[in-house]
Amino acid sequence: MAKYNLLNRLELPGGVKRLNPEQQKILCWEIRQKLLHTLSENGGHLASNLGVVELTVALHTVFDVPRDAIVWDVGHQCYAHKMLTGRLGAFSTIRREGGLSGFPRPGESGCDAFIAGHASTSISAACGLATAKALSGDRHHVVAVVGDGAFTGGMIYEALNNAGRTGNRLIVVLNDNDMSISKSVGSLARYLASKRTSEGYLNLKNRVEDALKKIPVVGRELRDVISDSKAAFRQLLYHSNLFEDFGFDYLGPVDGHDIPALVQALRRAKELEKPVVLHVNTVKGKGYAFAEKNPARYHGVGGFDRASGRLKVPSESFSSVFGRELVLRARRDHKICAITAAMEEGTGLSAFAAEFGPKNRFFDVGIAEEHAVTFACGLAAGGMKPVFAVYSTFLQRGFDQIIHDASIERQHIVLAVDRAGIVGEDGETHQGLFDAAFLSEIPGVTVYSPATYGDLRYALDQAFDCCDGVAAVRYPRGGEIPMDERLGYRPGEWFHHRSGGQTLIVSYGRAFGEAYGAMELLASEGKKADLLKLHRISPIPDACVQLAKKYRAIYFVEEGVRQGGIGEHFLDALSRVRYRGRMTIGAVENPFIPAMPADSAFRRCGLDAQTVARAISVLYF
Amino acid sequence: MAKYNLLNRLELPGGVKRLNPEQQKILCWEIRQKLLHTLSENGGHLASNLGVVELTVALHTVFDVPRDAIVWDVGHQCYAHKMLTGRLGAFSTIRREGGLSGFPRPGESGCDAFIAGHASTSISAACGLATAKALSGDRHHVVAVVGDGAFTGGMIYEALNNAGRTGNRLIVVLNDNDMSISKSVGSLARYLASKRTSEGYLNLKNRVEDALKKIPVVGRELRDVISDSKAAFRQLLYHSNLFEDFGFDYLGPVDGHDIPALVQALRRAKELEKPVVLHVNTVKGKGYAFAEKNPARYHGVGGFDRASGRLKVPSESFSSVFGRELVLRARRDHKICAITAAMEEGTGLSAFAAEFGPKNRFFDVGIAEEHAVTFACGLAAGGMKPVFAVYSTFLQRGFDQIIHDASIERQHIVLAVDRAGIVGEDGETHQGLFDAAFLSEIPGVTVYSPATYGDLRYALDQAFDCCDGVAAVRYPRGGEIPMDERLGYRPGEWFHHRSGGQTLIVSYGRAFGEAYGAMELLASEGKKADLLKLHRISPIPDACVQLAKKYRAIYFVEEGVRQGGIGEHFLDALSRVRYRGRMTIGAVENPFIPAMPADSAFRRCGLDAQTVARAISVLYF
Repeated sequence: MAKYNLLNRLELPGGVKRLNPEQQKILCWEIRQKLLHTLSENGGHLASNLGVVELTVALHTVFDVPRDAIVWDVGHQCYAHKMLTGRLGAFSTIRREGGLSGFPRPGESGCDAFIAGHASTSISAACGLATAKALSGDRHHVVAVVGDGAFTGGMIYEALNNAGRTGNRLIVVLNDNDMSISKSVGSLARYLASKRTSEGYLNLKNRVEDALKKIPVVGRELRDVISDSKAAFRQLLYHSNLFEDFGFDYLGPVDGHDIPALVQALRRAKELEKPVVLHVNTVKGKGYAFAEKNPARYHGVGGFDRASGRLKVPSESFSSVFGRELVLRARRDHKICAITAAMEEGTGLSAFAAEFGPKNRFFDVGIAEEHAVTFACGLAAGGMKPVFAVYSTFLQRGFDQIIHDASIERQHIVLAVDRAGIVGEDGETHQGLFDAAFLSEIPGVTVYSPATYGDLRYALDQAFDCCDGVAAVRYPRGGEIPMDERLGYRPGEWFHHRSGGQTLIVSYGRAFGEAYGAMELLASEGKKADLLKLHRISPIPDACVQLAKKYRAIYFVEEGVRQGGIGEHFLDALSRVRYRGRMTIGAVENPFIPAMPADSAFRRCGLDAQTVARAISVLYF
Repeated sequence: MAKYNLLNRLELPGGVKRLNPEQQKILCWEIRQKLLHTLSENGGHLASNLGVVELTVALHTVFDVPRDAIVWDVGHQCYAHKMLTGRLGAFSTIRREGGLSGFPRPGESGCDAFIAGHASTSISAACGLATAKALSGDRHHVVAVVGDGAFTGGMIYEALNNAGRTGNRLIVVLNDNDMSISKSVGSLARYLASKRTSEGYLNLKNRVEDALKKIPVVGRELRDVISDSKAAFRQLLYHSNLFEDFGFDYLGPVDGHDIPALVQALRRAKELEKPVVLHVNTVKGKGYAFAEKNPARYHGVGGFDRASGRLKVPSESFSSVFGRELVLRARRDHKICAITAAMEEGTGLSAFAAEFGPKNRFFDVGIAEEHAVTFACGLAAGGMKPVFAVYSTFLQRGFDQIIHDASIERQHIVLAVDRAGIVGEDGETHQGLFDAAFLSEIPGVTVYSPATYGDLRYALDQAFDCCDGVAAVRYPRGGEIPMDERLGYRPGEWFHHRSGGQTLIVSYGRAFGEAYGAMELLASEGKKADLLKLHRISPIPDACVQLAKKYRAIYFVEEGVRQGGIGEHFLDALSRVRYRGRMTIGAVENPFIPAMPADSAFRRCGLDAQTVARAISVLYF
């Protein structure tokens, strides 16, 4: 396209090195246009990518990928990097089926040094890469680019502690883009830091505090904002120099939209023969007024109108229904507390937060799933009824705590496991295909898998009031499946639909929609199959096993990993009651599914109604 | 017994409050005698318990359990606490079958506020308890007692970040017992800290550094010691005040063996209406010369001679064979690196560390399993061959990293999973009964389960040289099982023994010994059963499934959880090849097994040869 003159012309990677500063500015403008153009269509992480355009150009000016390695933390800010490393042509396919991933993928390009998707991993990975280079005499550099939010996750302190003391060359770019704190404070801090002396940070702290007192309106707002966990990390940063304590040299802060300043600072970092942190201030959403004004809303978008900034409005979803239900419950029951790990909006807890937080029954603990689980257990041990609302993929971080802190002493905590199952456009790193397996292997954990909003309400009733120990309610991204009223469906521990067949299709959660579709397709061919929908998937209700035992053949449809999944448990349960018929499991053989719409992913995994019906036809009719 | 005059006389808990300082000293002496007497018989965590005797007495002088809650981090230092809270009479049963747990267990006593066993969880739990108290208007106190080693684990920073900013009352006692740093430095730091002024820590840092330069011999030693990760945390502590940065008040350091000073400091902490850290210096092994001199060796003991200090020498084990093998390989292959998470000795890596570390191919990353996995992936991405040697129970902490950082991009890392299966005296919190399930549910992870040292060598060959992706080699605590030479056993992917039966007993790892025993018992009754030993347990070799398919009946013996275990996968694999016979799984239904010898645990789980033989007899003959 004509308007990407410079971008199209670059021989990449490394082409940016040959541009003069004026050209680099134009390049940044073109990158932003490309981002806006593509993301308004495809959706994706808008604000974070707009914020790191100059930083990305500066990085590619100073470093030579792939010989130098850039490790992006979380990785949702790597879009400009993709454009500058040979993937401009494919960029319009980002987050689309068969297209580029929205995250760094070494399998996609040698210029992506390490995978990302979950937060706070970059310094550990970069430390490994840097150590490998040191051991093998490779003098190239390793750079980790980390947002301030990642410093609420504990793993990064483990990495700082280790990277700092090795003394190996390693550059950590702290991309400080927290717009939730007022702009004045940002500028002030920049000003003060530029004046930083060797006696340093305690004076700085006093000066920051004095200066804050002088800001009339912002003062009170600021104090509220400080209760946010990211803000707490910022406090920590300005009060003392955490990084120097961990053995890093510290440079900055630098204006993250001033390429010459960035280039100069990165060159300085490169010269140091030791671990160094370069603190960069960026504006999330930079260059798109709507996103600058409200970066949180434009963090991850599902498509939008470029001219008006109007976002596609998310429709009713399990998350929003969960959030509403929880508010109603919490009004009646003063023991209910809600915890999120930096996903207040995503998990539907905004209304709860507004009504019950802060300093009351709502807790955003930052990207700290380990703490979240054990903190919930502490609340439970103290007589409260905590619910931790978390995406399935991130709950993997709390696996040990669910076993050790929650299950051995049977602490009654509720896990609201959102984005369980296939997630769509976020791809491999965000699939929620393990939770049914890893939760069900822990004794004492009860797992519900709603398919409708009615199921969700029923499951929450059970989880809060009828379970002890850990009760998990897992539901997919998006909305409920339509349940045909003719089936007379009512939420309950399970649902059985008879049509007089000798074959039973068993399923749970969203996949039940496909099972139902398969039954209809089979019926259209005159083949009768009955249906069993599990709602409580672990432990499997005995009655379901007894009921299934009577069938000649069973087909189990599971939106989750095969090994360790509910299908295997069902098979084992049948084996224990000496079932003599045949059972086949259709589940996800490879859960690392790249970006694609959920229905494509269902087809890819052979879990769509057509494939299920065909399999059953071939096997059993 | 006559010699425990005071200890026996106390009406507990709270009885210590009525003793005068002189009596408290005598009480401490009695507690130490009791510790030495019992632990020389039962084994257990000696050095850490000897170190906190005065601290425990001081805590019970100032606080009222169970209304005030004491949360012990890791919990292996709670023995004196158990004696002072109604469990003196049962103390001789500690870590024995049917006896007291070696860790805090709320289920054992209301005076144990929270479970522990894994490190770095206490502040999260205490934060939950304190928040619950604040919400319910309960004015009692919550105290977390945390060793310095726990600060190498990331989770504790998540907790500090959250606990600090809530402002809720919470007392963290930092039990600083690191004997690996020289005593002079400890005293110096104490001296300097006692002179601490409000401008504080930057001056302190300079003074510490100046003073260090004046210590002639220690200087070089110190620099070496600083490379240790615990030491790095200490550095950090003295250079700036990390805790104040996180929003805590800081008190100390206080001599952890001076009860009046401890009582005074704890009372001060109690008065503060906010989060506070009390820094206490204790001597690990205090009061027992052998343990004071070598606290690491006396950390966890398996029984010893009190007079001579002679420890029961551990015999040859999987850990020691693994360590020796790895040294041999690393001499041949310069890409091999070894990582441990604070378990150098336990995982058998001492010889490797001596030969290849520090600053070379050996990395003790502290109690940082998350970092360890991703760091290994970084090393692998950089062309090295890393092995992370870790206890099964602690690998649970790295579950998400194994999925996200290792498996999606198929990084070739080796996991040496020690203490897999039943662990014996450490009980519930340390059982290694989940790894086969959680590793096998991740596609691309290859899992070997050796039963002999020959198997271990074979598995390491495969893991390093014939696998891509994650290769896990899991082996139990202790030594190999004797393989009857008459079977003609050779290490390989599997082993099949025919005796002409229609029944097949399938097993893997140490449990194969029980399967073998069951076969012999059956044979003695004239009942023929064949044997199949899996060595590669995931993916299950196809040949094993084909081979098993020919049998009329199969009994699977598994030393691991049933749900998600290898038995279920085997059953599913059989179902896929339309197996029409019967298969029964004997596995661990409840993996939270309290302290007892492994053979008792096998019987409790119905996995011993007798029970297996009886079950097979009843089912199949």
